[in-house]
Formats: sequence, structure tokens, C-alpha cells
Amino acid sequence: MSFKEELARQAGIVDEALNEYLPQNSNYPEVIHEAMRYSVFAGGKRLRPALVLASARAVGGDETTVLPAACAIELLHTYSLVHDDLPAMDNDDLRRGRPTNHKVYGEAIAVLVGDALLTLAFKLLAGLPQNSPADAGMIVRVIAEVAQAAGTAGLIGGQVVDILSAGKLIDKHTLDYIHTRKTGALYRASVRSGAILSGANPEQLNKLTIYAENLGLAFQIIDDILDIEGDEQKIGKPVGSDVNNDKATYPALYGLAAAKAMARQSAERATGALDFFGAEADFLRELVYFVLHREY
Amino acid sequence: MSFKEELARQAGIVDEALNEYLPQNSNYPEVIHEAMRYSVFAGGKRLRPALVLASARAVGGDETTVLPAACAIELLHTYSLVHDDLPAMDNDDLRRGRPTNHKVYGEAIAVLVGDALLTLAFKLLAGLPQNSPADAGMIVRVIAEVAQAAGTAGLIGGQVVDILSAGKLIDKHTLDYIHTRKTGALYRASVRSGAILSGANPEQLNKLTIYAENLGLAFQIIDDILDIEGDEQKIGKPVGSDVNNDKATYPALYGLAAAKAMARQSAERATGALDFFGAEADFLRELVYFVLHREY
Repeated sequence: MSFKEELARQAGIVDEALNEYLPQNSNYPEVIHEAMRYSVFAGGKRLRPALVLASARAVGGDETTVLPAACAIELLHTYSLVHDDLPAMDNDDLRRGRPTNHKVYGEAIAVLVGDALLTLAFKLLAGLPQNSPADAGMIVRVIAEVAQAAGTAGLIGGQVVDILSAGKLIDKHTLDYIHTRKTGALYRASVRSGAILSGANPEQLNKLTIYAENLGLAFQIIDDILDIEGDEQKIGKPVGSDVNNDKATYPALYGLAAAKAMARQSAERATGALDFFGAEADFLRELVYFVLHREY
Repeated sequence: MSFKEELARQAGIVDEALNEYLPQNSNYPEVIHEAMRYSVFAGGKRLRPALVLASARAVGGDETTVLPAACAIELLHTYSLVHDDLPAMDNDDLRRGRPTNHKVYGEAIAVLVGDALLTLAFKLLAGLPQNSPADAGMIVRVIAEVAQAAGTAGLIGGQVVDILSAGKLIDKHTLDYIHTRKTGALYRASVRSGAILSGANPEQLNKLTIYAENLGLAFQIIDDILDIEGDEQKIGKPVGSDVNNDKATYPALYGLAAAKAMARQSAERATGALDFFGAEADFLRELVYFVLHREY
């Protein structure tokens, strides 16, 4: 199976599970469930869930067991997009080429959709299968890690600094802060959740963490580069929006060539951290290549 | 110790713990932590945390052990107030006599404050003390219950229906739906969390659940009555706001006298469910009287 086929297979499993875990549209009050599904099934690449599943496999675990955690992290990611798009935040009308949640359902529902996805994420984690008495302890540990990654030391902290930086010249340190929190924190939580739930030892966990942090950075730098060089059709939003919004990016602070070199270097570090693993980590290796060469 | 002294003692313990669990104002990015503390320390009565502590005591448990759960539920309650007050929702400028979060910190930060409090609530639950191997299992169970109570089948579902009902004539069934979710769900989760974490047996848990559901209903009906008969100084907001906003309330749908009778009946049912317990549930009994006769 090629990498793209494997990614599509995993996305299929994740979408099927998300469809099962999300309340049906017909559940009262219907509008919130319809609006949750609108944003969850909006064509995301499902990279974070793939990281959860692939980290489980890399340490000899079972992907079915960690599936609720993979879905939980995708719901967290979706909640953050819905709230970031709000008029009071980034005020975005389009996301992946479709109207944003608040443009379709209104601001009040969009706020509640984010709240509901965040809440459901923790419900899914608490519902992870317990096959042995030790499993509850691992689940509690994962919930603590995910809550830490999603909180003001992670995802939310990154968004706060991003908002405060709007229209300002920021330094490299602040740019790093924003991205290690907005992107890095959930990448890190994804691999760590999959690995912890599969009984990873401390050294495996440490290597996978280095992998995730560097993969997250490469992903973000490429995101910034695509905003300059990308194809609008493929990325689903207008190019040049960062420049037009005076947004600090890696190319803006370091120059385009240096930013590309940084993305390659992060990718190499991510791959290097996997030297510790055998063929069971091949998907994680190929994912680095995919992130570095992606066009959307 | 009188009931009011006991309530104040518990609020003191909870406030001290909240102060410890909430990130310091000096933690970067400072504004989010300052804004979280602004709403958490806004003079709440701490009834929900008191329910967690008192349920633990009622089943022979230790209040210090369940303190993180008591704080988690207060954070959930606060998050829901901050988001409900937003311009896109109830658009309230005042809460407990002070400007609402978004009036002080702006809408973007207020959205993120709610997100951060919700996230921190789950982090606190995952950090509950594990004194024996069985404790992790109880913690996972409590996280699942709290997530259910806070989600679209609970708190969020109630808020969705409340918003959809604005300016409309709603029936008694819909009014019940809103209040069993907006108030009842967290009351229920409070007593159940305290009891589960203290090793309650199924019958104790069942009785405490009936207690909480009826206490929550009495609380809400009295809230509606205070909006008509209350003292603005004591309740910290203008009276008559429900009538002015065409809001469905128990007095509006049933008449004032019948609403008062319903509150008394719910209070009796709450007290009746405690017949099963001895003096260790006295605080829970006195809390019913307090809720029924409160002036704020």
C-alpha cells in the first residue's frame, strides 16, 4: 500500500469512528449536532489522528484500541479552528473552501459547537477501552497530557499570543511560541497519547516526542510557505493572506530560502528521532516526507 | 457551626484550592490568566463545590480528596457563565454586579477564557489523587460523567435550547428541558462526583442523584422568582430582566403562587431522598432550606 493509500485508509477508519461518536443530527437539539458535524466533516487531512494510530503501531500497539483518542484529538483540532475563525478572533469567512461555522450557523452556535467538541473530546478519552486494571491509569495520564496540551500552556496560549500579535512586528521567539503551542502541542499530544496507551517505554516516548515536535514545526513552516507559493485551488484559501494581514511568518522573519532550509532541517530531525525504531515506524517516516512536500 | 459559617468555611477551602490550581497572573501569556481569575473570583456562592464536598462526607468520604473535583465543577460553571454572557449569546454587561468578562477583556479573550476554564476542569479531574490502584477507574468514571453533564445532552444542550427560545413562547416541557440541563446537569454531576470518588454504593448514589435533581429544580424556580420579587442590591442585577426579555420562567408559565409551591415540593423531595442518610448528610439538608429561602 502506498503512503497516500495508507493515509486514506486511516482517514476512513477515523471518519467512520467520528461518525459513530458524534451525536446524530436527529438528536435534540438538532442544530448543535448538525453544526458539529458540519465542521468535523469538512475535509480535514486527519493528520493528527493518523499520528495517534501510527505511534501506537510504532510501539507494537493496536490501532483499534487508540481510535477514541485519535478522534478526540481531531475534535480538539476542529474546536480550535471553529473558535479561531469567529469574528472576534481571526474573522474568517472561509475554511477549506467552505463557509466557516459561524457564517452558516451564526456566532452563538459556533461558540457552542467549539465548546461541545472540546467537551466530547474528553468524553471520548474517558471512554477508551479498559482491557486490564492498569488501563485506567494510562487513560488518566493521557487525559492529563491532552488537557495540558489544549490549555493556556498549549493550544489556547498560542492563540492568545497570536491574537495579541495581530498587526504587530513580532520577534522570532514569539513566532516560535505561537507555533509550538498552536500546532506543536497537539502533534506532541497525538503521538504521546498513541504511545502511552500502547505501553511505550520512556525511551520510545522520548524519541516519538522529538519526532512530533519537529514534524509540527516543519508542518507550520510549510504552511507559511504555501501561503506565498501555494496553489489557491489546492489549499482552499487565497494565497498571500498572511502578507495582507501583516502576519508574522517564518518566510517573513527569516526569508523564503532560509525558511525552506529550516523546514528541511526539522524534517531531518523528525526522521532522525525514528532511527530508534524499525519498519513498524515506516508510516511515521513517510509522513515527514509528505508534510515537507505537501501542496495543500 | 451554623450553616452559613459552614458554607463560608467550605467556600474558603475551595477558593484557596482554586487559587492554587489556576495559573498565576504572572504566567505568560498573562492576560488570559488574569481574565480567568477575574471571572472565577467574582463572588460566586460556591454551591456546586459545596455539593461535591458534602456528598463525599455524606457517604463517609474525605473532603480533601475530592477538592480538585469540586474546583473542576466550579470552573465548568464559570466557563458557562462567561460564554453565556457573550454578545452573540445573552449579551450581558453585568454579572454579580461587575462588568462581564468580555466587557473588561474583549470578546476574543472571553471566548478563550471559557475554553481555558473548560480545559482546566478536565486537567484537575485527571489530577485527582490516586491513593490505591482502583482510584484511576473511579476518576475515569467521574470524567465521563462530568463530560456527559457538560455536553450537548447537558449544559450545552440547555444553552442551545435557551438561545433558540429567545423571544418565543415556549411550553412547560421545553422550560423543563432547559433547566434540567442548564442547572440540573451540573448539580447532578457535583453530588455524583463527590459520591463516586468516595466509594458510594449504588443506592447511596441513586438517593443523592434524586436529591441533586430536585435541589437544582428548586434553585432554578427560586431564581425565576427572585427576578420578580428579589432585591436588586442583593442579587446583583436588575429585577424584571426576564419579563423585559420575554424569557420563559416558572412564574410566567405557572403563575407566581404555583411556582412557589413547585419550589417547596422540589425541596421536600430533595430532603426526602436524604432520609436514607444520618447526621453526616445534615449539611445537604440545610442546603435545601438555604436554596429555598435565599435572597440572592
